[in-house]
Amino acid sequence: MISVKIILFIIDGLGDRPNSKGNTPLKEANTPTLDGMAKEGICGIMNAVDIGVRPGSDTAHLALLGYDPYKYYTGRGPFEAAGVGIEVKPGDVAFRCNFATVDENFKVLDRRAGRIKETKELEKVIDGLEIDGVKVIFKESGGYRAALVLRGEGLSDKVSDGDPHKVGVKVSEVKPLDSSPEAKRTADILNKLIKISYERLNNHPVNEDRRKKGLLPGNIILPRGGGMVPYIEPFYERYKLRGACIAGTGLIKGIGKMVELDFIPVEGATGTPSTNYMGKARAVVESIKNYDFIMVNVKGADEASHDGDYETKVKVLENIDRMLEYILNNIDREEVYIVVTGDHSSPIEVRDHSADPVPIVIWGKSVRPDDVDRFDEFSTYKGGLCWIKGKYIMPILLDLINKSEKYGA
Amino acid sequence: MISVKIILFIIDGLGDRPNSKGNTPLKEANTPTLDGMAKEGICGIMNAVDIGVRPGSDTAHLALLGYDPYKYYTGRGPFEAAGVGIEVKPGDVAFRCNFATVDENFKVLDRRAGRIKETKELEKVIDGLEIDGVKVIFKESGGYRAALVLRGEGLSDKVSDGDPHKVGVKVSEVKPLDSSPEAKRTADILNKLIKISYERLNNHPVNEDRRKKGLLPGNIILPRGGGMVPYIEPFYERYKLRGACIAGTGLIKGIGKMVELDFIPVEGATGTPSTNYMGKARAVVESIKNYDFIMVNVKGADEASHDGDYETKVKVLENIDRMLEYILNNIDREEVYIVVTGDHSSPIEVRDHSADPVPIVIWGKSVRPDDVDRFDEFSTYKGGLCWIKGKYIMPILLDLINKSEKYGA
Repeated sequence: MISVKIILFIIDGLGDRPNSKGNTPLKEANTPTLDGMAKEGICGIMNAVDIGVRPGSDTAHLALLGYDPYKYYTGRGPFEAAGVGIEVKPGDVAFRCNFATVDENFKVLDRRAGRIKETKELEKVIDGLEIDGVKVIFKESGGYRAALVLRGEGLSDKVSDGDPHKVGVKVSEVKPLDSSPEAKRTADILNKLIKISYERLNNHPVNEDRRKKGLLPGNIILPRGGGMVPYIEPFYERYKLRGACIAGTGLIKGIGKMVELDFIPVEGATGTPSTNYMGKARAVVESIKNYDFIMVNVKGADEASHDGDYETKVKVLENIDRMLEYILNNIDREEVYIVVTGDHSSPIEVRDHSADPVPIVIWGKSVRPDDVDRFDEFSTYKGGLCWIKGKYIMPILLDLINKSEKYGA
Repeated sequence: MISVKIILFIIDGLGDRPNSKGNTPLKEANTPTLDGMAKEGICGIMNAVDIGVRPGSDTAHLALLGYDPYKYYTGRGPFEAAGVGIEVKPGDVAFRCNFATVDENFKVLDRRAGRIKETKELEKVIDGLEIDGVKVIFKESGGYRAALVLRGEGLSDKVSDGDPHKVGVKVSEVKPLDSSPEAKRTADILNKLIKISYERLNNHPVNEDRRKKGLLPGNIILPRGGGMVPYIEPFYERYKLRGACIAGTGLIKGIGKMVELDFIPVEGATGTPSTNYMGKARAVVESIKNYDFIMVNVKGADEASHDGDYETKVKVLENIDRMLEYILNNIDREEVYIVVTGDHSSPIEVRDHSADPVPIVIWGKSVRPDDVDRFDEFSTYKGGLCWIKGKYIMPILLDLINKSEKYGA
């Protein structure tokens, strides 16, 4: 039997709400390939996590991959850390951090240290520390942001943030959030780490240099959003499919890494509206030759929505349509199923994610076509997938490629 | 108030995937009655167990009858045993068995004993044995197949198969699959039983006779697929409906028996494409006079699918359409609701069950008709039932016949 393959194409922030003219970027965009796929495929609308749930990209992608986020999602920290390339392990506790600027009394002057960029040098004086027998793994993740992982015995993620989330106040003392010895120990270690970070960063040459230029120093790190790294069954073990991930943003890379999808790097894939669309499309076509399953995330539409930029969202969607045209023209149509959907809606009017369902199409040889011939928010709900939840996508695909296990006789 | 009744008509293996011309057997079949029912009734698509789940006929029928298979389905053994007429009881452990041929060193020469047929005589030397205080109930279930039930204290279904599932190797020693004394005891009993079966069968006159004819003897029994018989609330207790079952195959009879549906025998009902269709239709018409609920299963379409026989599947569906025509013409249309659906799809291209949803129609006096006027995979999804799960069918029917209990005031 031929090995049939799957491309899960996720348009981040796909759906929208109608503007005053009743239009959405997806409705207005010129998307002949998506419309053709809707005509040939089976359509519906989907909520990745559940109806009425406004998900993050992380929880939505987990759900789409068939991992219950209520079970596996322990906070953003672990997924960010994995996304920046830290080899996180179950039991690690991971945090997001900012490099910030404080005065000598630890009063926060700027939570982003003047949007400091030269943090690659600064991370080195934190990364590799050992505090009370716990290993500190620390990596900047683009400018003033960083990921922190604590690795060792007896840790907990039940601790408060060191980041006070505002300026003009002192750095928060990290406190245990339950009465366990693990939470107390973790809070102690973080408080020590925050103090040590100041000692090591305040007079660091990079910061001295910034001060000379009149810039704010990144002289402390402020952890927040801690989460225990969960054990997640690897994608291959769960589905017996060799899988890979193509994505521009750290968070999605982190999701892929956590479920052990191989990462396919694409030059110029940035997670912005000016990403290298065709480079990603070529990477899909190339990598589907070597894998059973490719998840590709294109982030630009979501970015445009966060900026409230309707026109850019239209353009991103038209670029994505050309990606799909290229993919369809360069795969064996008998051997590949393609799902196109979003992780969540991001209405322009909201400038953030919403719980509105997103259009979905499953395209491939043996799906049952329906009457839908437009891929937008006002057409796909009439299709054969009706209103579906993200958790059903992988089981449906496994069944279509005849790799589903029978339940019963 | 008139007593309103229900016919649950299950077309085994109903749904399919489109062939290269975009057709399915159901779409091509000439089914004026089904189409008329679709027009007058309320339609949808259904997954008996859940979306994306590829069910067996057993788990699917349980779900359609409103019994959660994840709670009640303990393996095929119990349902097969019930289907061949063994009065199984909760706590019994039931197995499927083959009569097989072994040499004097218990090496398996043929797992089906040359497809031996004369096993009715052979079952008698096993049935009724007592081993370590446990009663052995044993019945052939057609040729080389048999059902085995162990009844007594301290048994477990956590044991491995005695059937090695291949030839040229020794009969497997049954092993406990957990550390409980019950599993060890059950394994011991099965190992003794396998040995005793050889002692009693090897020189049995039936087998001596076969050897003289150059045929392989059925000189051992090989148990597999053990399951503990669950307690299942009888259908009448659950729904207060007097129910009966019409089916040609042992497995479906077993399901009916387990939930204590009366069995209505029909001469020539074989569970094959050449079953006695009209005999079954007449049995439905006759028995609905005496029962509130009739479940009828017609297996032929599934059999045709397993054989990859598109044309036969079309013909089976056309025969089923005539059954429904007869039923409609011979019941009081004011007094009967009819559900027509499948337990699962069985696409010709797969030659096995799939998770594709099946069409469903609920027909009867007070349903809300929708716009669907064709009973097939490409029309029914547009109907008023949308995409529904099997567990909702019985509650909807109970409500339609005004026997649903109000929840709240």
